[in-house]
Amino acid sequence: MQNSLSIKKIKIRTSKSYFAVIGSGLIKNAGVYIKEVVSDCKIALITDDTVDKLYGNKVCTSLINNGFKVVKFVFKHGEESKNLKTYGEILEFLAENELTRTDAIIALGGGVTGDMAGFASATYLRGIKYIQIPTTLLAQIDSSVGGKTAIDLTSGKNLVGAFCQPELVIVDTDSLKSLPKETFIDGMGEVAKYAVLDKKVFSLIEKGDYDMQELIYLCIDYKRRIVEKDEFEKNIRKYLNLGHTPAHGIEKLSRYTIPHGRAVSMGLNIILENSLRHKLINEKEYQKIKQVIYKCVGENECPYTVKEICLASYSDKKRSGDKITLVMINGVEKISLNKISVDQLWGYLN
Amino acid sequence: MQNSLSIKKIKIRTSKSYFAVIGSGLIKNAGVYIKEVVSDCKIALITDDTVDKLYGNKVCTSLINNGFKVVKFVFKHGEESKNLKTYGEILEFLAENELTRTDAIIALGGGVTGDMAGFASATYLRGIKYIQIPTTLLAQIDSSVGGKTAIDLTSGKNLVGAFCQPELVIVDTDSLKSLPKETFIDGMGEVAKYAVLDKKVFSLIEKGDYDMQELIYLCIDYKRRIVEKDEFEKNIRKYLNLGHTPAHGIEKLSRYTIPHGRAVSMGLNIILENSLRHKLINEKEYQKIKQVIYKCVGENECPYTVKEICLASYSDKKRSGDKITLVMINGVEKISLNKISVDQLWGYLN
Repeated sequence: MQNSLSIKKIKIRTSKSYFAVIGSGLIKNAGVYIKEVVSDCKIALITDDTVDKLYGNKVCTSLINNGFKVVKFVFKHGEESKNLKTYGEILEFLAENELTRTDAIIALGGGVTGDMAGFASATYLRGIKYIQIPTTLLAQIDSSVGGKTAIDLTSGKNLVGAFCQPELVIVDTDSLKSLPKETFIDGMGEVAKYAVLDKKVFSLIEKGDYDMQELIYLCIDYKRRIVEKDEFEKNIRKYLNLGHTPAHGIEKLSRYTIPHGRAVSMGLNIILENSLRHKLINEKEYQKIKQVIYKCVGENECPYTVKEICLASYSDKKRSGDKITLVMINGVEKISLNKISVDQLWGYLN
Repeated sequence: MQNSLSIKKIKIRTSKSYFAVIGSGLIKNAGVYIKEVVSDCKIALITDDTVDKLYGNKVCTSLINNGFKVVKFVFKHGEESKNLKTYGEILEFLAENELTRTDAIIALGGGVTGDMAGFASATYLRGIKYIQIPTTLLAQIDSSVGGKTAIDLTSGKNLVGAFCQPELVIVDTDSLKSLPKETFIDGMGEVAKYAVLDKKVFSLIEKGDYDMQELIYLCIDYKRRIVEKDEFEKNIRKYLNLGHTPAHGIEKLSRYTIPHGRAVSMGLNIILENSLRHKLINEKEYQKIKQVIYKCVGENECPYTVKEICLASYSDKKRSGDKITLVMINGVEKISLNKISVDQLWGYLN
């Protein structure tokens, strides 16, 4: 087993307190870490077909070696599985396998798996324990922490869900090696967001040649500070939506062929340009941030006009009545929230 | 509008505080009461075809007269609608009608409507506001208060759900007049449970000739005291499961042709008999309680053996690992919780 000195641990103190552990080689010892938060129970491992081939057996073996009973549910990879149908299949699977309130679920995979298995955990028997083992960069730095779970409807993404914190998040940095380059870059789109929000992440990216464990640690630690103060997104958790209003429009226009993190980095650029135009940020800071976004994702031209994006964003669930909260950039770690009417969105972003 | 002196109000202080208002003629003024908790928004009225015919128009008219936009979703009445399919249809309906986080849902009807509309409210956009307008006795005294929401799976009842408190509960006692006798008696099955739990309810039933508003008030007020102390059923909220372990077995054996409240009163009798057999209660108290259950529901013979019921109860979701918490009767307002192994259930109940 890995030297525990090289494992980084973060305690997240929300309505439920839990740890995120970050290190190399953690997946093959998953059972050891999980035993510290649940014991002597049945675990339903939920994963997609791609991730199952890579890590399914490793996780199962470690769980069995640590005294757990294991049942496994595998669904077809991809966002199109994150719907009511698969959600229903997971729930029936849990009931058929007689999982009780003292059993647990593991979400092994990327954001889709975490979202859907998390929502099933939040609602099966009105909530049973779950553990996140995120295997994509995007899930590791962002979606696996903070307890947002969701599924899609025909009308739009993430329209149904719950806030439900996991018992534990296990981030195995080795899993990044198995990611296709495009999926890695997708995660770097969300890293770019954290760089704007947090000086430490910004410096790391700016100097380059960083350690991934350190980068993931800093992103999660920033998110920890935010969700500890505002678990249910009443105010400052909205910071984490930086770039997301245009990003949701971009994803929609592309019929979700542009992945989330990539769309976020495009959205960041749109917000940054407009922050300069509205004189919220000076030219020097603007240039610095532009460079850092580039360092994260490289060339990243958005194929849509801002008008198209704004129109597509209108049905974004972040709209509150006729108002929408737009996150603007005043500098590195300097963010402002602007509540504007949806009709003014295109006038404001240009 | 009704003289407000004749309206009884109860404030329930859980994670969210809200009022239950109880009185005659409240449905036709629903909009007036609702305006005090949400305003200037769109409301999705969710109801079944039976209740829609009786009260759908009245509620809509009152809402419109009080400045609300209204959309209505009507589903086929009956427990068999309380499934993932109808839940999904409600969610798609909410999204198609572009309900946002500042809009609200009304659950107008019995327990099925309250459970399902409540669960949709708990999860649509990770939670939007909802108002309960219960129209059956069972929903008025029990399921509309306390925030438990649920839907059924193929494998069993109420296996999926969330804890989510409403903004307001409007109990119109006039709606009891439109109930079929069997549905009224069904509610009286749960009243019998409250009678065992609470001396005031017990006395009211014992003396007979009571006012329904007073009875409903006392039942809700008892439930208020319990859920305020234990919203998420960690300990004393289990009291409310009195009679429910056998009841779930009875419902299952009957393929849900024996309704819930009726099954609860049968379950109460089984628990009462066994409380006497185990000398938890003396003969005099036993006779008093037996009489009061009879006053609530009349002749009520259970068509199954205790062995059959216990075997069917095993998959009750209240089972925790291999243990189950059985609520026993030591007297009026004297209750004990007994954690026993499911394998011992039939040995204990006889």
